[in-house]
Amino acid sequence: MPADSAALVAALDIGGTKIAGALVDGRGGLLVRAQRPTPARQDGAVVMAAVADVLRELRACGLWPRVRAVGIGSAGPVDAAAGTVSPVNVPGWRGFPLIAEVGRRTGGLPATLVGDGVAMTAAEHWTGAARGRANALCMVVSTGVGGGLVLGGRLHPGPTGNAGHIGHISVDLDGERCACGGRGCVERIASGPHIARRALDAGWLPGPDGDRSAAAVAAAARAGNEPARAAFARAAQALAAGIAATATLVEIEVAVIGGGVAGAGDVLFAPLRERLRDYATLSFASGVEVLPARLGSDAGLVGAAAAAAQEHGLWGALPGR
Amino acid sequence: MPADSAALVAALDIGGTKIAGALVDGRGGLLVRAQRPTPARQDGAVVMAAVADVLRELRACGLWPRVRAVGIGSAGPVDAAAGTVSPVNVPGWRGFPLIAEVGRRTGGLPATLVGDGVAMTAAEHWTGAARGRANALCMVVSTGVGGGLVLGGRLHPGPTGNAGHIGHISVDLDGERCACGGRGCVERIASGPHIARRALDAGWLPGPDGDRSAAAVAAAARAGNEPARAAFARAAQALAAGIAATATLVEIEVAVIGGGVAGAGDVLFAPLRERLRDYATLSFASGVEVLPARLGSDAGLVGAAAAAAQEHGLWGALPGR
Repeated sequence: MPADSAALVAALDIGGTKIAGALVDGRGGLLVRAQRPTPARQDGAVVMAAVADVLRELRACGLWPRVRAVGIGSAGPVDAAAGTVSPVNVPGWRGFPLIAEVGRRTGGLPATLVGDGVAMTAAEHWTGAARGRANALCMVVSTGVGGGLVLGGRLHPGPTGNAGHIGHISVDLDGERCACGGRGCVERIASGPHIARRALDAGWLPGPDGDRSAAAVAAAARAGNEPARAAFARAAQALAAGIAATATLVEIEVAVIGGGVAGAGDVLFAPLRERLRDYATLSFASGVEVLPARLGSDAGLVGAAAAAAQEHGLWGALPGR
Repeated sequence: MPADSAALVAALDIGGTKIAGALVDGRGGLLVRAQRPTPARQDGAVVMAAVADVLRELRACGLWPRVRAVGIGSAGPVDAAAGTVSPVNVPGWRGFPLIAEVGRRTGGLPATLVGDGVAMTAAEHWTGAARGRANALCMVVSTGVGGGLVLGGRLHPGPTGNAGHIGHISVDLDGERCACGGRGCVERIASGPHIARRALDAGWLPGPDGDRSAAAVAAAARAGNEPARAAFARAAQALAAGIAATATLVEIEVAVIGGGVAGAGDVLFAPLRERLRDYATLSFASGVEVLPARLGSDAGLVGAAAAAAQEHGLWGALPGR
């Protein structure tokens, strides 16, 4: 397909809470939006009906004839090769044929499916903190820990669209059992709920509003609370080991961190940068930078569009590359 | 450069013990060989003189006019972008401009430099156990632990030629300090010397010949010695965590293991495959296979040639791809 600057991509961002859609232009702008809550506890057909509603709303827009491809970012695991998704938080979808179902509702436009961490990475590479970087890890540290890779100047989704899944690499081989079945995974130490749990276990007392979120732990850490500070320091250590492992395995020059836990700012980033020196020791890995993400909650939509544009050759070389 | 089946590559494999050279054809055959001991403790010029001797011997051969490129695999770290090497075991070479020095002695033929783990990977992908696999990790478990990656059907050396350095990812973030400065690195647990140390510490007694090698530990493990068996089980666990991390980060379908420690056979591979199920838990990672390497000590030469052929477009698509 030739580069076409007027082409649009219909993007979907499918999570456990909401299903968002947008028409995205070649500059990463969201021209039209649609959104539905995810009926996550209902059966698969009901979830798909919500996706269909979002698509119907987008198709009703006068810009639809300019749409050349569909980009889908979904909570994982996904299987891009099979065109199916099995989001952990949407039990009604197990091996659900999302590409085929979306294709039926979009007149057979070519569709690209990637995991949500890969989509966020595509967005940060295109217009965010990883712009202009040939080799990068982008990650979301939130309720879970996800991520994606840019290698050799291009998004690297891997054969099934799940590459960059840094939340489930083990950095503590004898560590606590993770929900994934593994042990000592980065997510098991560094996710928001595990930061809060660790702070509480060490004696942190939530304030009178009862807020037990990682944001509340971060506020306490900034105010000098030692168990809160230690919980973030441990998360930073796990993230540092995971980022260093990635730099050592695939040679990244930058790690970009978004998601709610990244909102802790220096409470997270200062110990993370310090501990990175302990783990990223080899000459080719020791220069890896750590930056906060630039895009917010639209990253999933922007990135799903970028992934589709890369696969289908829309928009020529994207500006970030 | 057009594909040319008669083209040859001059390959160099530079290690701390020997400097090997060969002329390699498009089927991975070694047509002419030359070798010198590495004067590893002498100054850089003396080491380079040994490389020059190897090249002189190759150039004297009647096949030399068919050589189109030079492939160099070197003990790391290397810096392919700068064309320099700094092998840990060759202190006289620090940032040594190997590409330029080889270029002066080969009439300016184009040269490709990769780390030795990357070279071994290129060889196993071309004609060995990773042949036909689009995504693979190949590793050498020996005095150290090195490796390389094949991603999307092609060798992935990374910008500096060091990608796949699995020996120095941390799988035990609070673990013992590694020679690289990190903690709990795969090499710190799974290399031959560390397997032997762990067995000795746990009460293994070497035989009357005093052999304290990992091969001697493997023989004791096969004979039922418990500390010997446990040392291999721990190495297998660390390798499993590292392989699982790689599968989770970049989606590999196979991990190929060579080097002296792999010679232990089932003493290593049985617990490794078992532990891999504990760490490679996500759907897209859980199918990763573990296979012994097929090529022996020539892998460095064959792989250096393959890496150069890939970069310079010789031999068309190599058979393994």
